[in-house]
Amino acid sequence: MHKVIFDTDPGIDDAMALLFLHQHPQVDLVGITTVFGNGTIDTTTHNALYLKDVWNISAPVAKGAGVTLNPQRPAGEPPRMVHGDNALGNVEVPEATLSQPDGRSAHRFIIDMVRADPGEITIIAVGRMTNLALALREDPGIAGLVKQVIIMGGAFTVPGNVTPVAEANIWGDPEAADAVFTAPWKLVVVGLDVTMQTAMSRSHLAGLAARGGRRVELLAAISDFYIDFYSRFVDNAMVIHDSCACVYLVAPELFQTRSGAMRVVTDGIAIGQTIQKPDDRFFPPSPWDNHPSQLACVGIEVKKVLELIDHTLAPQA
Amino acid sequence: MHKVIFDTDPGIDDAMALLFLHQHPQVDLVGITTVFGNGTIDTTTHNALYLKDVWNISAPVAKGAGVTLNPQRPAGEPPRMVHGDNALGNVEVPEATLSQPDGRSAHRFIIDMVRADPGEITIIAVGRMTNLALALREDPGIAGLVKQVIIMGGAFTVPGNVTPVAEANIWGDPEAADAVFTAPWKLVVVGLDVTMQTAMSRSHLAGLAARGGRRVELLAAISDFYIDFYSRFVDNAMVIHDSCACVYLVAPELFQTRSGAMRVVTDGIAIGQTIQKPDDRFFPPSPWDNHPSQLACVGIEVKKVLELIDHTLAPQA
Ligand SMILES: [Ca+2]
Ligand SMILES: [Ca+2]
Repeated sequence: MHKVIFDTDPGIDDAMALLFLHQHPQVDLVGITTVFGNGTIDTTTHNALYLKDVWNISAPVAKGAGVTLNPQRPAGEPPRMVHGDNALGNVEVPEATLSQPDGRSAHRFIIDMVRADPGEITIIAVGRMTNLALALREDPGIAGLVKQVIIMGGAFTVPGNVTPVAEANIWGDPEAADAVFTAPWKLVVVGLDVTMQTAMSRSHLAGLAARGGRRVELLAAISDFYIDFYSRFVDNAMVIHDSCACVYLVAPELFQTRSGAMRVVTDGIAIGQTIQKPDDRFFPPSPWDNHPSQLACVGIEVKKVLELIDHTLAPQA
Repeated sequence: MHKVIFDTDPGIDDAMALLFLHQHPQVDLVGITTVFGNGTIDTTTHNALYLKDVWNISAPVAKGAGVTLNPQRPAGEPPRMVHGDNALGNVEVPEATLSQPDGRSAHRFIIDMVRADPGEITIIAVGRMTNLALALREDPGIAGLVKQVIIMGGAFTVPGNVTPVAEANIWGDPEAADAVFTAPWKLVVVGLDVTMQTAMSRSHLAGLAARGGRRVELLAAISDFYIDFYSRFVDNAMVIHDSCACVYLVAPELFQTRSGAMRVVTDGIAIGQTIQKPDDRFFPPSPWDNHPSQLACVGIEVKKVLELIDHTLAPQA
């Protein structure tokens, strides 16, 4: 069993990833931490509590950061054109939720959980890296106690999605991402290099909903808006970024990785770019020296990843 | 006929490119301008005068910049491990040359030549972009009077060679390169994306020398050192970066290009990186907006390029 804290900004593809973690038999979801990004922190936290209610998830929800690690950075607007005004594709979400947030902030929750269960917790982070960076800042010792960190974010060998070189989760808090990438823990980055290859079609999702019942029906409903947005990139399908990070947890053999130190650009025109120095390449002394080698995913077995998600979200016909 | 000013920092692969331009029947080499880079400005200018002497080149040599456009930038050391202590592979170069430099600085020479022959001059720049940026600063109007600018430098879709993202010519004066990339002239960038694919083997070069006589024998002699350096990347061969830009002039059909505005990163860990926003990709408002679309080479017909160089440097057996 993999004990998992899921750090997320739901978010439509976040919702699919959450359901995947909730339903996968080898995952023990021990906490959900929220971060701003696809919506404000109030919106993403409300959405996490709502999904906890409707999907009957036992893990607590801890509310996290609503601004970047460096509070001087301009806040920016949530990407309403991608995830809708409520970050769940404008599907109606009730104003009240049965579940209430944990009393602790997300980063304090992470520290407590990791300290209580050393060596056992995997953190899967599919939003901005702010909560993880805050946890590292408050208690750097947790880096040695986390089992593994899996990130959805970045773009190493392909173009970005918010600038020609930057992916949204990293661009949204580059200082936080740089702190997370250079911390001495085991880290794997699942970025656009692989996620942009994973498109789930509207008809596939409809078939899933027919087999998966109300849980997956909700997922299909909130995804409609996102599929419309993604029609400029893929035909009548959604790119399931965040689920890829969850699949890596249970089936890393479906990914090819490259090892090397990673840094994030924190200013200038390349801000938010993720840059890896592969271990087998040599350069003059550089900002990548003396940082830990981490894994970047550079290849993916798309068909098998989609099958695994399909089988986890709904029983076989 | 293509009237060409060759802006260069000889440099071993620069020497091959110079001989290619000198010998190609469709090229009228009307000037050589020097820049620091593979050696100090005194070294590269001396080397240019020496090659003019031994190869009987009529075009004048104008001495150019010895420091970056922003004089605050630290100077750095020439890459002695790549091009040797004298930037010509440690082959003995006499202290005195018959030829003497033109009285004008390189950037003034460029302005004069372009103004004297509007619409006719192609500039091929295979070193740092300092001279071109100085010419644009002193007389911005030349941008509309140059026929075409062809650059060897940068890396758009592949890693860099001095950092994980930066190529040496651009990294060596990033402010200059950004000014050159964003000027309103027709510009083509021949970068590592294509040049790293062009390896000429030691035996090929030896065969060329046997057919090409003393001119090519000199080229083979100075290239020995460079081939030893490149043995970490390619087996017993030299990557002929600078000649690729010259081949583009006479045979652009051997290259695939991508159109889009280009910027250069001028600080931070990505300094010297070249970033293009392809015309068919859409992003929120960005530093690429309102700059001219230029061409980046992203594909090359390696065999045909090597054949063209072979036939130009030496008659067929
Ligand atoms: Ca997300
Ligand atoms: Ca050169």
